[in-house]
Amino acid sequence: MSLNKSLIERDLAVLWHPCTQMKDHESLPLIPIKRGYGSYLEDFDGNKYLDAISSWWVNLFGHSNPYINSKLIEQVQNLEHVLLAGFSHENAIRLAERLIKIAPKNLTKVFYADNGSSGIEVALKMSFHFHKNRGEIKPLFISLENSYHGETMGALSVGDVSLYKEVYNEIIIKSIQTPVPKDQRLESIYEPLQKLKELLEKHKNNVSAIILEPIVQCAGSMHMYNSEYIKEVKKLTEEYKIHLIFDEVATGFGRTGKMFASEYAEVSPDFMVLSKGLTGGYLPLSAVLLTDDIYREFYCDYGSGKSFLHSHSYTGNPLACAVANASLDIFENENILEIIQPKIKLLTELLEKFKNLKNVYNVRQTGLIGAIELKNYKLEDRIGLKVYKYGLEHGVLLRPLGNIIYFMPPLSISESEIHEMVQVGFDAISSLNK
Amino acid sequence: MSLNKSLIERDLAVLWHPCTQMKDHESLPLIPIKRGYGSYLEDFDGNKYLDAISSWWVNLFGHSNPYINSKLIEQVQNLEHVLLAGFSHENAIRLAERLIKIAPKNLTKVFYADNGSSGIEVALKMSFHFHKNRGEIKPLFISLENSYHGETMGALSVGDVSLYKEVYNEIIIKSIQTPVPKDQRLESIYEPLQKLKELLEKHKNNVSAIILEPIVQCAGSMHMYNSEYIKEVKKLTEEYKIHLIFDEVATGFGRTGKMFASEYAEVSPDFMVLSKGLTGGYLPLSAVLLTDDIYREFYCDYGSGKSFLHSHSYTGNPLACAVANASLDIFENENILEIIQPKIKLLTELLEKFKNLKNVYNVRQTGLIGAIELKNYKLEDRIGLKVYKYGLEHGVLLRPLGNIIYFMPPLSISESEIHEMVQVGFDAISSLNK
Repeated sequence: MSLNKSLIERDLAVLWHPCTQMKDHESLPLIPIKRGYGSYLEDFDGNKYLDAISSWWVNLFGHSNPYINSKLIEQVQNLEHVLLAGFSHENAIRLAERLIKIAPKNLTKVFYADNGSSGIEVALKMSFHFHKNRGEIKPLFISLENSYHGETMGALSVGDVSLYKEVYNEIIIKSIQTPVPKDQRLESIYEPLQKLKELLEKHKNNVSAIILEPIVQCAGSMHMYNSEYIKEVKKLTEEYKIHLIFDEVATGFGRTGKMFASEYAEVSPDFMVLSKGLTGGYLPLSAVLLTDDIYREFYCDYGSGKSFLHSHSYTGNPLACAVANASLDIFENENILEIIQPKIKLLTELLEKFKNLKNVYNVRQTGLIGAIELKNYKLEDRIGLKVYKYGLEHGVLLRPLGNIIYFMPPLSISESEIHEMVQVGFDAISSLNK
Repeated sequence: MSLNKSLIERDLAVLWHPCTQMKDHESLPLIPIKRGYGSYLEDFDGNKYLDAISSWWVNLFGHSNPYINSKLIEQVQNLEHVLLAGFSHENAIRLAERLIKIAPKNLTKVFYADNGSSGIEVALKMSFHFHKNRGEIKPLFISLENSYHGETMGALSVGDVSLYKEVYNEIIIKSIQTPVPKDQRLESIYEPLQKLKELLEKHKNNVSAIILEPIVQCAGSMHMYNSEYIKEVKKLTEEYKIHLIFDEVATGFGRTGKMFASEYAEVSPDFMVLSKGLTGGYLPLSAVLLTDDIYREFYCDYGSGKSFLHSHSYTGNPLACAVANASLDIFENENILEIIQPKIKLLTELLEKFKNLKNVYNVRQTGLIGAIELKNYKLEDRIGLKVYKYGLEHGVLLRPLGNIIYFMPPLSISESEIHEMVQVGFDAISSLNK
């Protein structure tokens, strides 16, 4: 029996995989990975796969990156973990300093958590608690239609992808969704803004915050919209005295061509939530950046009962903070935000030819995120699954979102790897017409 | 300026610590840790602290353990991460196999998440979803009074420590709390069982699951209760066809003297949630173990809409799984569950003398968890804070829960370190009388 096959059997006997209908694996290949290097993953039978989705949008500088590895090894030999309540360590401090330095202005404090969902929960709880500390009960949150903010019940409640949310409606709190601009054109922002104003007017005393993914709703079919919308939302949040939360879990750390997607709007939120690429794709960690205004509202005598007592055991884990700092080192030392610009241009050029395919509805791109939306397929065709299989058979890991084929490779991807990745995507989509 | 002091200044300028009123740090020392080894943490000025609380109940085999380090280093040089949807890796498979082997019987599948809270959310969502797949809407969960299950909104909603929960009442779902037996005596289980029966009779068609921390409610003042209660709860969950969820996030992995606390009751739940010690205290990871009955209810054609599509980007992270396997290696190779028995006995002996202190209300112990409850202090006295400071000044990290001084050291603690730890705890409590 091949090594792959033996591991697959063992796997299917004990594991329930995330975001997976396990019955699919009766026909779909499950792939046990032995090692990773650069943009590639290699299975136990020696097959290689170009990781065109950065292993769920986390990897930035290639798998098993020697520099990041060296920093992890250095850290573990000194300190693997210490609780962050009452205690601290250098990598947690240094990471917070650096995040604040590169973040939109006015974000001056960092609260750590373990994953994107937990980070979103911190922001939501803190925003609600802030208003409560001021004597106001504002139990509503507004989010965009088609948004995705994670899977724990608070994060899920502000999401709007029905595939993940609908079945749990009875066990999550109610939130309000407002229309997202329907495309990247400036003119598509006005109607949604009007709707948002009406919502705010109606609920103004009950809303703690608006949460949004700036310019790209990744899990929401890689939907992209104009950054001017965010500028206007910022004005509204100021007018109505509610918080603005940016979920940059997926869009942060260079994916969009800038360090943070919100830079396109030149807007500072009250909260910014980071995860995924934060550790270069190594370890779960999230960081919630927030303003001094918020921090000060909680800063008072313990007896006042206004403390934010949220915690996770591994908050600010030294190993995760060490690799996050190593990842920021690479951004600085290798001028990553400049180096990726020609790659982004190349992707733009290569995406052109998809527009001529008769089953392509729309091609869109922001930075190193490229998405191709197919048309004339029904959900039950599971066309994405066919593209996924085609990709694997041809050495490229694509994981379409329904009818959306997308690329979100590591920032370290080479130009020739971009060619390979896009060509296999093109062939996969073309093959559907045959 | 001392290195400590310089780091403290940098820290307080940028970090918001978990479960902390930051104003406390105007007088309370914040301690930057440089390195850890064995049971000790060492700060940048060379002061050492015996970690009597295993850094929030996570560390099992000492800080920066050479064997676990070696396994982490081995893993990172091969594969730092790969998404677990459609893909797998050997350490995730092997860990699941081993957890199933040591877990209560009938737990045959493993679903990974990133921290205790996320693991609890998986169990709650899966339980609710299970019933919904069968056509039943059961939006209620029952948990024990004084319970703690985490901080994300779903996990928080089934907790009952008002310090963490009360302020968020308007943004979490309602759940039902049932009395916990008031102490470890067998006779204290009957009244709570009667109450639980009444609750179940009243809500029987609306309850998905009962969730509990077996025999020790750690964050709930280290409250301990008789394992017979759990046996009876198990019978009730079978009678009323609802799920039983064991939260062994804090109690798992030897803390109670057995691998899992539920072994005292010899009861198999429908779900068991593990985290904290799962990775030996190195990295955030959680595992939800569940029965074949549950797994099969979701196993069907994708089109049926019954899939459990929960995910976190770092689900089953290879680095976290590698250290978790290394930790299980140590359990096996070093016969840990036998080796800790004399340490538990020693702790029992040493706890005796606390009973003579006039400010001690109660002394209780389960395995290597020992707790001393003080009396005649008011909450606003913040007596725990005084003990915490005393401990630090005398080289022992104690972090009382209000009026409860407790010990939960690494399993690898030596007998002389137990003497040191308990003596400082004793002196701290004695000093309060002066």
